[in-house]
Amino acid sequence: MLDIKFEKTKNPKPIPDENNPLAFGTIFTDHMFIMDYETKKGWHNARVTEYAPLTLDPSAMVFHYGQEMFEGLKAYKAEDGKILLFRPDKNIERANNTNKRICIPQIPKEDFLQAIKAVVAADKGWIPTKPGTSLYIRPFVIATDPYLGVRPSDTYKFIIILSPVGPYYPEGLNPVKIWIEDEYVRAVKGGIGEAKTGGNYVASLASQVKAHDAGYSQVLWLDGVERKYIEEVGAMNIFFKIDGTVVTPMLNGSILPGVTRDSCIALCKNWGLPVEERKISIDEIYEAAQKGTLEEVWGTGTAAVISPVGQLRWKDHIMQINDGGIGELSQKLYDTVTGIQLGKIKDSLNWIEEVE
Amino acid sequence: MLDIKFEKTKNPKPIPDENNPLAFGTIFTDHMFIMDYETKKGWHNARVTEYAPLTLDPSAMVFHYGQEMFEGLKAYKAEDGKILLFRPDKNIERANNTNKRICIPQIPKEDFLQAIKAVVAADKGWIPTKPGTSLYIRPFVIATDPYLGVRPSDTYKFIIILSPVGPYYPEGLNPVKIWIEDEYVRAVKGGIGEAKTGGNYVASLASQVKAHDAGYSQVLWLDGVERKYIEEVGAMNIFFKIDGTVVTPMLNGSILPGVTRDSCIALCKNWGLPVEERKISIDEIYEAAQKGTLEEVWGTGTAAVISPVGQLRWKDHIMQINDGGIGELSQKLYDTVTGIQLGKIKDSLNWIEEVE
Ligand SMILES: Cc1ncc(COP(=O)(O)O)c(C=O)c1O
Ligand SMILES: Cc1ncc(COP(=O)(O)O)c(C=O)c1O
Repeated sequence: MLDIKFEKTKNPKPIPDENNPLAFGTIFTDHMFIMDYETKKGWHNARVTEYAPLTLDPSAMVFHYGQEMFEGLKAYKAEDGKILLFRPDKNIERANNTNKRICIPQIPKEDFLQAIKAVVAADKGWIPTKPGTSLYIRPFVIATDPYLGVRPSDTYKFIIILSPVGPYYPEGLNPVKIWIEDEYVRAVKGGIGEAKTGGNYVASLASQVKAHDAGYSQVLWLDGVERKYIEEVGAMNIFFKIDGTVVTPMLNGSILPGVTRDSCIALCKNWGLPVEERKISIDEIYEAAQKGTLEEVWGTGTAAVISPVGQLRWKDHIMQINDGGIGELSQKLYDTVTGIQLGKIKDSLNWIEEVE
Repeated sequence: MLDIKFEKTKNPKPIPDENNPLAFGTIFTDHMFIMDYETKKGWHNARVTEYAPLTLDPSAMVFHYGQEMFEGLKAYKAEDGKILLFRPDKNIERANNTNKRICIPQIPKEDFLQAIKAVVAADKGWIPTKPGTSLYIRPFVIATDPYLGVRPSDTYKFIIILSPVGPYYPEGLNPVKIWIEDEYVRAVKGGIGEAKTGGNYVASLASQVKAHDAGYSQVLWLDGVERKYIEEVGAMNIFFKIDGTVVTPMLNGSILPGVTRDSCIALCKNWGLPVEERKISIDEIYEAAQKGTLEEVWGTGTAAVISPVGQLRWKDHIMQINDGGIGELSQKLYDTVTGIQLGKIKDSLNWIEEVE
């Protein structure tokens, strides 16, 4: 158990009016959680304090060598007023896998969960309740040694900030258009692709700008070795329904093991659908689209939950999916996942963790 | 021309006593250069101010998405008191290539050079003069939008900090032992390997820790696709002298185009040595070592200048180079490069830029 100090803000900010649409990731709540790390002391000085700027030496390693881990999950307010988290244990496990890959010390999982609950409880008044809204939770760790030279830092800060959010895509649940990238690569086996760390996202920017300029919301990456196998989307894992079978790329070391991905696989299996986690080549997808067996495509991620894909573009080929409409299975997954998250559907898989 | 404001520190720090050995990257001078960027204003508010902590929102994009560029070069004090920079135009060009790859706005090259000169001039008293020491210059840019979501930032800070340094390796010019990595990958073609950005360095940490624990100073990376071709060392490019020919990996998009690398190639060519920039497989190196034609191996980098390699380890194979001694060509390159940098050898290639 952490001994978390609570220093309540003296300057509470106005909570956004729920009648105005919420953007994603622009507004932050009154408090944040912080805890420090030093080699000799371990993690210490856990506190919930006013949301306030960080003061760091310009030589702090995070600014130079990218030693930073982040996570993303959400808190929801159920109709009965309960505050619910969706599978926080999965995010915590993934955070520690990222930490391991990039040489950040482990954070004990009970402490991590306690920290999330403490800061969410402090700002529970900020959880929006309109359909499609929630409180986005961003835990992250940064390397703070004031040192130039490549080695793991000896000091870190673990911080959790909160942001009331609306839909990630302006499209909402409407199908998005996705650009299949064949020039740039996001990650490669043996690299840091399966870790949630800045380096993977910075690598994606140029491609994303190119896709945006061409009218696409996101980029779908191919593998870095053969440039042939489907990996994942910028901030989502990807699923295909081909001829009645649900297919998604296997976890191969270069894609993020998404919590929503895992949940969709479990739900589809529960519903008796055939699910395959395997290598999927872009040619297979293109052929299925040509033959008319590419029934649905959707992305999965905490931010967008389930995001139907209406169009895929690969070089000069445009693949229209499901006439650009929302697929039946995509809709069912969206309704089920959000239903469980909001406490409207029975949590038979034990995915919900309540914040007291 | 930038209009650079100068706010002299009111709290000058003691300059380290030159009689004590200097470490690398732990001490910073009295001042730093800062300039801000906003989409509407472009780069503005250029200033040389007291070296002081940065204050950033916890949601600043650099902490989450790794949008950060850095460079490294050195200033030297010649015997006649002149302050010399070594090929700063190459660093500035590379910085802007990095900026382009990771969607940071370009920094006009004259402004960049002016900024370096301004801050170095402000702290010229900090340039150490003992053999093997210099003033390390670290320009970097960080993304500062307070925003969660993956896109290029609209605001940035460009900062230059200075650190009086001694040798990068505790070994000094003595040959280092290098570990050839066959599990992890640093970068891949189509990725960000040729950019100087944190993501490449964070990817290298786990491997470096492993190598260190086994008694090796640095890691030599193989390519991410075939895991067969030599790429570069953690913070250096790599050269081999095989049977009289100087061989170094070609610039292929996944290695950093080193300024010292470029300088060594130019010098060797000037001396009439055959130089090849090409793909080099690890098998070729291993065979040369077996046959006794692997005459010298050395790394090149701003921090270490020329670093002779005394041993390479690849899986269970240990390759002893030049009986673990400093090779003749490595020594000549070291003497020539440092001689030019210190103004002791005629700068016939026009590499030196004076700070007035
Ligand atoms: C690269 C990437 N892939 C996939 C996902 C989806 O993962 P999750 O469902 O855990 O949010 C995310 C977002 O977290 C991501 O950033
Ligand atoms: C990955 C990497 N390779 C090579 C180098 C050498 O480049 P330069 O000679 O420009 O310092 C460096 C250091 O800057 C580096 O970080």
